[in-house]
Parts: sequence; structure tokens; C-alpha cells
Amino acid sequence: MRSCGIVVEYNPLHNGHVYHIQEARKLTESDCMIAVMSGNFMQRGEPAILDKFSRTEAALQAGVDLVVELPFLYAVQHADLFAKGAVAILDALGADHLVFGSEDGTINAFHQAQLKRRAKKGVFDEILKQSLEQGLSYPEASRAAYENIGINSTLDLQSPNNILGFAYLRAAEQLHANIHVDTIPRIKADYHDQSITGPIASATSIRSARLRNQTENIKQAVPESTYAALQDIKQLHSWEDYFPLLRYLILTHTPEVLRTIQGMDEGLEYRFKRYIQQSVSFQQFLAHVKTKRYTWTRLQRVCVHLLTNSHKELITEWLDNKELPYIRILGMSKAGRAFLSSKKKQLEVPLFTQLKDNSHPVADLELQASDAYYSTLLPAAAAAARKQEISPPIFV
Amino acid sequence: MRSCGIVVEYNPLHNGHVYHIQEARKLTESDCMIAVMSGNFMQRGEPAILDKFSRTEAALQAGVDLVVELPFLYAVQHADLFAKGAVAILDALGADHLVFGSEDGTINAFHQAQLKRRAKKGVFDEILKQSLEQGLSYPEASRAAYENIGINSTLDLQSPNNILGFAYLRAAEQLHANIHVDTIPRIKADYHDQSITGPIASATSIRSARLRNQTENIKQAVPESTYAALQDIKQLHSWEDYFPLLRYLILTHTPEVLRTIQGMDEGLEYRFKRYIQQSVSFQQFLAHVKTKRYTWTRLQRVCVHLLTNSHKELITEWLDNKELPYIRILGMSKAGRAFLSSKKKQLEVPLFTQLKDNSHPVADLELQASDAYYSTLLPAAAAAARKQEISPPIFV
Repeated sequence: MRSCGIVVEYNPLHNGHVYHIQEARKLTESDCMIAVMSGNFMQRGEPAILDKFSRTEAALQAGVDLVVELPFLYAVQHADLFAKGAVAILDALGADHLVFGSEDGTINAFHQAQLKRRAKKGVFDEILKQSLEQGLSYPEASRAAYENIGINSTLDLQSPNNILGFAYLRAAEQLHANIHVDTIPRIKADYHDQSITGPIASATSIRSARLRNQTENIKQAVPESTYAALQDIKQLHSWEDYFPLLRYLILTHTPEVLRTIQGMDEGLEYRFKRYIQQSVSFQQFLAHVKTKRYTWTRLQRVCVHLLTNSHKELITEWLDNKELPYIRILGMSKAGRAFLSSKKKQLEVPLFTQLKDNSHPVADLELQASDAYYSTLLPAAAAAARKQEISPPIFV
Repeated sequence: MRSCGIVVEYNPLHNGHVYHIQEARKLTESDCMIAVMSGNFMQRGEPAILDKFSRTEAALQAGVDLVVELPFLYAVQHADLFAKGAVAILDALGADHLVFGSEDGTINAFHQAQLKRRAKKGVFDEILKQSLEQGLSYPEASRAAYENIGINSTLDLQSPNNILGFAYLRAAEQLHANIHVDTIPRIKADYHDQSITGPIASATSIRSARLRNQTENIKQAVPESTYAALQDIKQLHSWEDYFPLLRYLILTHTPEVLRTIQGMDEGLEYRFKRYIQQSVSFQQFLAHVKTKRYTWTRLQRVCVHLLTNSHKELITEWLDNKELPYIRILGMSKAGRAFLSSKKKQLEVPLFTQLKDNSHPVADLELQASDAYYSTLLPAAAAAARKQEISPPIFV
């Protein structure tokens, strides 16, 4: 069986994603499409608008054969760690291909950029270090370093999907992964586009339309299943829903306790404590706390880690650990099941079809993050969601 | 100026409370009625249905001249500690009298009971200890000990207001307080009565009617100001409102962290973790966790301490401290202000007319508890309530 991996968030799944699945399958002539998907929290530090099970179902209906969870540990991290987790999972599963969508769209540009980076590693690292010391944020410092070694003429590393793609290639190299990486061009719709203007729209514009209740407009841009899920207001999650809880946590925790949270560094806990008093929304709070060094995305990730009670100690320990903790299946088709059966014997990583309490610290963190995610639901719905978290995968 | 203290919760203030204020003033011929009032959480471990400011206003309108806050530190504790805090405040303020309402209604019965207890202290303590070891709850063990030394023939210590009154007398003795303690009989309405049948009704029945939206029925049993406050649904607080938050906390905290919370003893953290999964309401959760030893009230107090992030270490340190940390004024009339002016110079305890961050650990705990209490409000309302917490007292 030929297999192809893709790395996704599906927040929510839209027509552009369906195109990606279809084109990647065509390009690699694969029998099994494997999606490594973030769980309930996104890479940029946001709660997913729909929970992981709803998005798993949408993925299966859109043609994915196997949905594997990117553990929370890697999912809410900068591009390099996010990519490392995803590629490690695909490699462990023995996927033949990895195909990502990118603004550039030609894999050659990525390979060239990679060669340049390798050749000038010393200079790159030096500029990165200096820029960070000057108070630039990590993305800004990377940009400066890339610019300095002349990568920009080869690959535009200001585009979010180019950045991620470049990170997948680097991760594959670092992990000595036996996987063939390729890219397809994303079809038009700027990642940050704020409005839906046709059948291809950005996830950002779809979320934004949904939160403004413009559901009719969404119809053209998403498959049936996503549209139906987005209709159910009780299922939707956004940062503003969590703001009272976040506010509660910041007010009732001492700076010492806040400091134990992943990403709460350099006195950020005091900025949190100072600005929470005068903020009546998440947007307002982040706008207050934001500085040149603390980017919006970085602050959102810290907020996710606070909300999910993710401590530095645990996160660091397991991120530093070279071993992949486990592979967790969220959903599969018949082809996905066949693929798993064919690989089962040679898997060197535990395969979880169900999470259980105390099975693994990284799995416990996953459950904890989901408990936090579901905490804005009514108690009965939260309890039902919890039950689904420890149930067998979705099978279609 | 002659002054009389009363110890109150006003959850909410009703006609029986107005009667208590008037009768105590008459009995002691006082110019200044001082109410020591619990803040946002009640002695039995419940969020107050109305916040402390709304209840302070109601108290002032009902004839109280000075409303002083019983710090959260003492307020959510068993009767002895609750009484100790309240009597210490009245003593420090130099109040001449303390008048409590009781089922018994004659102070002589309390004095007799007190004498009996003192005479048989050794036996009492022994029976108490044995009963606790046998797994009885603290109230049950006390009851057994009182029965054994024959107090029951003198004073019925099964009645909640007799228990509290007895605790005031003991506290006054222990603190060598220079205060004259007296009691008046409560007018009919059993403390635990569940329905309103006339102008005198229990606070329990009023809360319960309000939460069932039977507001018309409440009118006969409360003054105008309480009635108006209870009409505003956005102001009301009940345990069920906090259940999602409580659930979140129990699920996302490790047993080790839960164990640092005041009252979380003897493996209770594991019972909390086990039963939270299957509970979809606060009532259901407590019914699951409850045992013979863990009474409902005790469990509710633990839940308050969890919600307010009150750690054993801090609570124990300050409860053990003999000094009263401060006296905080919530509201006053002209007479109340005159009383304060007349006493100011001889006060040996800091007088706070406004709370500020970092002014005192016990005051910080108060702010923290209030932040937790307001966390179920919409963000703008929570921020406004926070502002009121650090504003000057209400003056009428």
C-alpha cells in the first residue's frame, strides 16, 4: 500500500483542504492518505473552532483514510517543534510521502533554501542570536537571519505555509526520516484573508464569518459536513469564550505559580497580572500585553498553556525526549485500517486507539488540555466530550 | 456612644434579620449597630446569592450603622473559628454588646451550658477525640461529646443558631473580650425551611424560591432593597454557576496540587478526581463524594477553598496567628462614622477603609476570593465588581 502523509489543523476543514487531499493523493498515487492533525488547540495558540472529533469526521468524509493526533505537546509550539512532532509520527508510521501545500509550490526552491541554510549555518545562528539579544521576536530574528544568508532570493520565508514546509524538510533531515517530501501550490486565498469571496477561502475568514453569524456566506467555501457542524452553536469555541476563565486564573494565581507555566518567561507573569484588571475581552487583554518581543501568536500560546495548566517542567522534559511517546488514532476508513494492520508489526512506537488515564504523561497532558477545552460547555456536554476522548477511534 | 454588635451573613437579608437588628438595638439601647458580615462566601461553604456590596447596602437600609467584613479567612470555617474571628473584630472595635438570635432565646441557658462544658472539659475532649477516631464528622463528634457531658438537658446544641451562639460565648471567654453577650429568640421560621409561608421566612427558602424564579412569593419576606437586588438575574450567584469552573479545576490539577488546598485531607483529592468525571451538576458531584465523615457542609467549604485557590499553608498560618490582621469597613451611616471617629485613636488593629493589592496577605486572600466569586460574571461586570472591591466604603 502506498501512503501519503499531510499535516493539518482543519480549523475548520474547507474546500482548499479537500483540494490538498485530492491533489496529494493524485501526485503520489497513494492508497492511504494519512492526516496528522492538531487536537483541540492550534499551532498559533487558539482553541479550535470545532473539536477534534468533529474535525476528524470532516477529514474522513473529505477523503482522508487515517487521522492521527499531533499531541498537544507538539501542536501548540513554534513551527520547528510542530513540524518535528508531525514528521516523526509520519516517519514512525512508515508513510512513503509527505505533501504540503505552500505559497511557493515547487519543492526545488525548498531544497535550494535548505542547502543554503546548511552551508551558512554558522552565520545564520550568529545573526539569530544577535537579533534575539536585540529584543526581536523569534520569527523576526529568523527572518533577519534568513535575509542575511540570502535565502529570500530562493524562497519567500515570510509566507506562513512556506515557513511550515521548510520546517518539515528540516525535520525530515534531522530525524533521518525515510519519507519523500513534496509540495503543491496552494490555490489562491491568502492565509490571512478576512472575507470569503468564492469557493476557496481561508480558514481565518470562515471562522470570522461564523463568529459574526454570516453562516450563509460560509456555505460556498466548505464541504457539507463542516457546514453542518458550524451550524451548531453549542459546539463552537473561540478565545472570548475562555476569557472569563483565563481572567480567573491570572487573578487567583500568584506570579510564582504563573511562572511555572510553559512560555511564561522574562517577567511576563507581571504583565499578565497588571493588564488583566483593566481588560474586558481577550482581544483587549492581548493588545495590552503585546510588545515587539512578545508577538500575538507567542502570547496566545502562553494563554493556551495557562488554560491547560501546562507546566514548563513537563513540556520541556518531553520535548527534549528524542522518543515519540505514542501514536494516537482519531479516526480511520477501511483503507486506513488496512494500512495500520499492514504496519502494526513493525511499529516501534506504542499505538493508542484509546487514551486512558495514567497511560503516559504526554497522553495525560492531552486529556488535561481537552478537559480545559471542554470546560466552556455545559456540564453534561463537557462530560460527554470527555467520554469521547477516551473512546475508540471514529470508523467510517 | 453605646454600641451593639451582631454577626451576620444576610444571604439574603430578610424580615427576620430586620427584626433582629431592631430588637438588639432596643434591648441594648445602642446608638450604633455594628454588623460583622461574611463577604462573598458563606460559613456553610456557599457563594452568597448577592455580593457583599449589595448586602451591605441592604444592611444599611435595614438599620445597621456600620458593616464590617468578616475576612474570608474566618468566614468559611467551622462555627468555632467563624465565631472567633467575628468576636475578635467586635472586641477590637470596642463594641459594648453582642446580641445573637437563637432558637433557645435565653442567655442563661448558654451560660449554664458553658459552665458545664468548662467543668467537664477533660471528658468532653476525650469523647470528642474518640468519636473523631471512630470516623464521625466534627459536628457529630461534638454532638456526642455534648450529649455525654449532659449539656443537652440545658441547651439544644442541634439547632444551628444555638451552636453559633454558644461559639460566640466561648470565643468571648477565650479572647477575654470586654463585651456583654446576650441573645434574643428567633421568631418562627425553621432555619432549614424550604418554603415561604409568611413575612418571616428562612434565607434558605428565599434563595430556593429565587432560583426557581418564584420572585412574587419572595416579596412578603424581604425588605424592598433585597427584593430589588434579587430581581437582577445578572447579580445572582449559586454553586451551579461555578460548577464548570470547579470541574475544570479538579480535572486539570494533579492530586498533588489539589492536596495543597485548605481542607483537602485524607485522600479527598482522589475522591474529587474520581467522581468529577461522572457528575454533571454540583449537587450530583457532592452527593457522590459525600460520606459519613465528609459532611455536605465540609465538602462545600473545601470546594470554596479550591475555587478561591486557598492554600493550607496560608490559611493555617493566619488562623494560628493570634493577632487580628485588620478591620475592613464595607459601609456606614452617619452614626457609624461617628462611632468610628470616637474609637479611631484607641484602635490597636489597622483599619482598612479600602483594600489594596499587597497591603496584607489576608487582604490579598480576600481579593482573590472575590475575583473567583466574580469570575462567573461577564468580563465587564467582573471588572466593575473588582473595582468596587478596592473602592471606599458605602456611605449612607
